[in-house]
Amino acid sequence: MPEGNGDSVRRLYQQGETVNGAGINASAAVHTDPDGHAWDRALGWSIALGSPYTFATTLRDEYLSDIAGERAILLGAVHGLVEAMYRHFRIAGADPVTAYERSTETITGPIARTISADGLAAVRAACGDQDLFDRAYSAAYGPARVLVAEIYEEVADGTELRSVILAEQRLASRPMTEIGGSPMWAHSAEVHARRGSAPAVLDPLTAGLFVATMTAQVDEFAARGHAWSEIVNESVIEAVDSLLPYMHARDVAYMVDNCSRTARLGTRRWGPRFQAAYEQIALPHVSRPADPDLVASFLANPAHDALAAAAKLRPAVDISV
Amino acid sequence: MPEGNGDSVRRLYQQGETVNGAGINASAAVHTDPDGHAWDRALGWSIALGSPYTFATTLRDEYLSDIAGERAILLGAVHGLVEAMYRHFRIAGADPVTAYERSTETITGPIARTISADGLAAVRAACGDQDLFDRAYSAAYGPARVLVAEIYEEVADGTELRSVILAEQRLASRPMTEIGGSPMWAHSAEVHARRGSAPAVLDPLTAGLFVATMTAQVDEFAARGHAWSEIVNESVIEAVDSLLPYMHARDVAYMVDNCSRTARLGTRRWGPRFQAAYEQIALPHVSRPADPDLVASFLANPAHDALAAAAKLRPAVDISV
Repeated sequence: MPEGNGDSVRRLYQQGETVNGAGINASAAVHTDPDGHAWDRALGWSIALGSPYTFATTLRDEYLSDIAGERAILLGAVHGLVEAMYRHFRIAGADPVTAYERSTETITGPIARTISADGLAAVRAACGDQDLFDRAYSAAYGPARVLVAEIYEEVADGTELRSVILAEQRLASRPMTEIGGSPMWAHSAEVHARRGSAPAVLDPLTAGLFVATMTAQVDEFAARGHAWSEIVNESVIEAVDSLLPYMHARDVAYMVDNCSRTARLGTRRWGPRFQAAYEQIALPHVSRPADPDLVASFLANPAHDALAAAAKLRPAVDISV
Repeated sequence: MPEGNGDSVRRLYQQGETVNGAGINASAAVHTDPDGHAWDRALGWSIALGSPYTFATTLRDEYLSDIAGERAILLGAVHGLVEAMYRHFRIAGADPVTAYERSTETITGPIARTISADGLAAVRAACGDQDLFDRAYSAAYGPARVLVAEIYEEVADGTELRSVILAEQRLASRPMTEIGGSPMWAHSAEVHARRGSAPAVLDPLTAGLFVATMTAQVDEFAARGHAWSEIVNESVIEAVDSLLPYMHARDVAYMVDNCSRTARLGTRRWGPRFQAAYEQIALPHVSRPADPDLVASFLANPAHDALAAAAKLRPAVDISV
């Protein structure tokens, strides 16, 4: 199964004509194997899809990491983070376009490109104000980890899916609300038109919160026993090679309002939880000194090696939509 | 069972010495009645508690309206609303104290006092800008109703309680986060010190969103077959006679961080959902004309008569803490 949205699967497949290793990574699982050739077929599909890297998983592990991941760093947390940061920068005095650029553009543009090209630690290295990145990371890691754990347990327990089933039944009489009415998205066209006129800003505050949340998901999945190849694909590569570039082209609200129903409902449930955690816990704590243990543990995270291994066949992939 | 927090039960009981009808309303339900005197005993307890009005319910109806209500207008929605409105007024240029007054103070002070003394429709009548109240009401009623329905179904289905049980298990290793770190609460002391130096402002925008949410809960409970006496006690009277005055004395964050664990967890789950609904759906739609059908239906709501009946014994009650 390719780990990205349809648009990226096709776009990176086409790049594969000229760029060795371009393509969306895939997962494969064998549930029953009556004739002993199930893996051959699974890998055949992967190669036909142009996937440069295929990781082995199980139906259970894939379900858990996929549904929990889209509620966290792949979609829900991104939406909550950009809503929180847009208001944060507006209250600090930024005009709407600047607030949009420092909240949304910085994630879907330079942060995604930096991680895709050079890995997770490269974002920190690329921040002008590394101390601010570290303080933001330290303030956000704890509350983000607690939320990822809550999501994971509700998915594993079946509670999350019960909510989705109840929500599906309500949709017959009450259509799902759209999130695109939020004030920020009225400035999308203006922000997109400014692209290229100045270097894209990698905001260290937004970057610290984002990378902390991504790392919290990585660590929670690792603590739950997922394989590292699956962890980095479902927490990092799918985000930076597929979903964030798509959001960069269309905007976050468009992506959320146009993905699968399960993901849309999950984003509505969990995005606001992340927003509240950033607003009420992380941002008020950014003024505190960075936690050296948390930063050291980030720099020594096994995800860096796993990412390098999962990405080594695609050195020149172009993730832009 | 008295329908209010312990502080109000005691305070209004003591007022009963001099004010006829002061006291917290109570609910009573009889599950089994072996000797035929269960109702006598229930009413005896009510009178001993100083309750001026006791409504009959069932264990199931009380459970549903109590747990859903505290996640909606009694606690969760109030928290989400004040967080949304504080940021809304800050972005519109208000200083922190003014933003706090127009978001939190207006609800816990004049709105609560107006409803307690004169009922729900009196808030609209007291608004200087009634058209703004109507537009805010019209913009918020739909998204608030959808959320109350979602909460109600998850409580009825058991999903909400499964989440609480999972959360309780996590508390052993990860303590519950406090919500008091949100920037607004740093200004509580300054706001409280200003009380009395100028007339309290009843902000029509905040009032419209608040009353729409309260009415949405009333209507959803009515649609689910609850008795009107229970509906107005669990949606209106408990809020304006007990919880909001307590929040006025201590602040909303203090109330949320110091109530029952089930309510604290529920507020964390649903408060951010309400905040997002106000920010992303209701507030962007306030610029549209009011919906005359929604306003007419509000003015003709059976809750007004039910409130008058449930409150008629306590004309001079002092709700201040």
